[in-house]
Amino acid sequence: MGSTLITRIGTLVTNDPTLGDGGPLGRIEDAALVLDGGTVAWAGRAADAPAADEVYDAEGRAVVPGFVDSHSHLVFAGDRTAEFNARMSGRAYSAGGIRTTVAATRAASDEALEANLTHYLDEALRQGTTTFETKSGYGLTVADEARALRIAARHTEEVTYLGAHIVSPDYADDPAGYVALVTGEMLDACAPHARWVDVFCEKGAFDGDQARAVLTAGMARGLVPRVHANQLTHGPGVQLAVELDAASADHCTHLTQADVDALASGNTVATLLPGAEFSTRAEWPDARRLLDAGATVALSTDCNPGSSFTSSMPFCIALAVRDMGMTPDEAVWSATAGGAAALRRTDIGRLSPGARADLAVLDAPSHVHLAYRPGVPLVRGVWRRGTRAV
Amino acid sequence: MGSTLITRIGTLVTNDPTLGDGGPLGRIEDAALVLDGGTVAWAGRAADAPAADEVYDAEGRAVVPGFVDSHSHLVFAGDRTAEFNARMSGRAYSAGGIRTTVAATRAASDEALEANLTHYLDEALRQGTTTFETKSGYGLTVADEARALRIAARHTEEVTYLGAHIVSPDYADDPAGYVALVTGEMLDACAPHARWVDVFCEKGAFDGDQARAVLTAGMARGLVPRVHANQLTHGPGVQLAVELDAASADHCTHLTQADVDALASGNTVATLLPGAEFSTRAEWPDARRLLDAGATVALSTDCNPGSSFTSSMPFCIALAVRDMGMTPDEAVWSATAGGAAALRRTDIGRLSPGARADLAVLDAPSHVHLAYRPGVPLVRGVWRRGTRAV
Ligand SMILES: [Zn+2]
Ligand SMILES: [Zn+2]
Repeated sequence: MGSTLITRIGTLVTNDPTLGDGGPLGRIEDAALVLDGGTVAWAGRAADAPAADEVYDAEGRAVVPGFVDSHSHLVFAGDRTAEFNARMSGRAYSAGGIRTTVAATRAASDEALEANLTHYLDEALRQGTTTFETKSGYGLTVADEARALRIAARHTEEVTYLGAHIVSPDYADDPAGYVALVTGEMLDACAPHARWVDVFCEKGAFDGDQARAVLTAGMARGLVPRVHANQLTHGPGVQLAVELDAASADHCTHLTQADVDALASGNTVATLLPGAEFSTRAEWPDARRLLDAGATVALSTDCNPGSSFTSSMPFCIALAVRDMGMTPDEAVWSATAGGAAALRRTDIGRLSPGARADLAVLDAPSHVHLAYRPGVPLVRGVWRRGTRAV
Repeated sequence: MGSTLITRIGTLVTNDPTLGDGGPLGRIEDAALVLDGGTVAWAGRAADAPAADEVYDAEGRAVVPGFVDSHSHLVFAGDRTAEFNARMSGRAYSAGGIRTTVAATRAASDEALEANLTHYLDEALRQGTTTFETKSGYGLTVADEARALRIAARHTEEVTYLGAHIVSPDYADDPAGYVALVTGEMLDACAPHARWVDVFCEKGAFDGDQARAVLTAGMARGLVPRVHANQLTHGPGVQLAVELDAASADHCTHLTQADVDALASGNTVATLLPGAEFSTRAEWPDARRLLDAGATVALSTDCNPGSSFTSSMPFCIALAVRDMGMTPDEAVWSATAGGAAALRRTDIGRLSPGARADLAVLDAPSHVHLAYRPGVPLVRGVWRRGTRAV
């Protein structure tokens, strides 16, 4: 693979504050990038660009780092369209909710699960997502959780063990027994296939003590923690995440000032998932409050068939600006560099020399258009590891 | 052009209540369509489909009528990204607002205006919009308004004269003089190129008497009225629209019960434009109230660079369901048949025999996914007048 010069970029977002305008986005106007060997070799003004083997003329379009979607649930089967339709139509529906997805996922073949996963990954890639994390959590047996992680690991390095998504219906009368399984035999089967351990710390799922048991067991096996925290109600999830130095506390809708302070002082990223609030008509997380306190904020889709069936990071950016108090600059940073921070990665989410050459070319002159033009498919080209993918 | 059979359609929305399930969407599962000579020749169950010259296998995907976007402002030039960015970032910005667009539009060449228009039309087409209305209103001189309509008329039959968008800055001290121009010399120059006459009836723009003068003058020249009504405040626009039998009252955010009753009893469609509320963080129109009263509701983008820079009808559907109380079925109907009603058209917005063969194939098994999967570019193929366009 030879080098590629992408030139005549309208606005280039590098997320490197030592480049360009000196702001957090490291913005360069009339810019160019050189990609070589899968990484960024050079970034600067188009007028100063070195030569390369191939040239792509961006014709004034913006280039942003590929989106880093640090929270999704894409190893699933089954259909919950009728449940969504009933909820949004105000009709009663005796839905099994997540249990519907668990039953269908268990019943699906490996091939069917993988085909479904790759369908949504391709869809996300066409919208500019070049890195995604995904989780188990719809198997809830030793074999089904391990299978989900094995399948996910064929498609991403960012695989999360979420045996503690809900208490398995098989253990409805014995939640302690299920926690023992998740921290014992299931963990043994899953740890080799995952980087992360996660738990849904929420009323009706796992309480603070159970969540601590799940996370510390995973950490003892070398997994790094992340937590579904404070989504539906206030709870101990955020404090636990910061205490255990989790990479991310995800959702963060119901926060006390102590929670905000903890996120601002620790290394745990607050990952906000506006697709979930959109599709469940729930209260918006207050990104402004977190940012003003000094917390690091990431944006992610939470893509799943129950509560947030969007794979669109641009849509999440538009919602974050409209309803969560983020500026367009902050939202674009959080969907790229923020996601990278939530995955403790420094090689992605930026476009400065040495970073992975993962990027999206927008059909617009600036990154602001991701919020200014909501719902419009603005991603015109995607490069992943230096190769054009879309 | 031979006939085309589109078969193995998961869910077909015909909007013909005599077909399929008997509901307003005239929904047929496991369906097929035959297109011939630019119109729909047959619609029904795939198992019963007649033969055709060509076959397209929808592989279980949904097919909906092409979206009818009955309200846009696409003859413009200039850039207002900085204004949007400042507004959403909470920064002061001495923006000229609409006057910025007027100045840039006047300064632009015909070629530049047409290139901009076709850029956004192509973008809308890729998102499933097969019919669009568009307006003048950024010229505000006799020559510039007529030019905008001439350019628009090369691309759509649904052209609207909106000389009464705002009082021209050239007449800042003489609004009556501007109304005289709009109803006189400007109308003479514009009427031959337009089907519709429109007015922005709002505090700061045109009051009820001025709006009546504009609309009745246009009607006397054979134009059919439509009205920007009750967007920012309550006003006389809706009542005037119904009284004059306007095809549509657009925005309808601030309504009294008398306004709702008038819309329910008259032939005037209530066109709701959720992109505007989204991008200006304004109060949502109450679609549920209008529907429950018996009014006909259309959804449209209002695509324009100031207050709603989306060309995405699927995005408007998702917002209407999330924030305006519409069911997914109602929102899809309003974005297709509703838009057709707002343009007083019966040949579009439906897929029953005799209708124009304008349709979108979705990368999803049902139309509900347009709301269930917000922000995701679900349109996979578009046929316009029987020919594949995307
Ligand atoms: Zn989640
Ligand atoms: Zn308008």
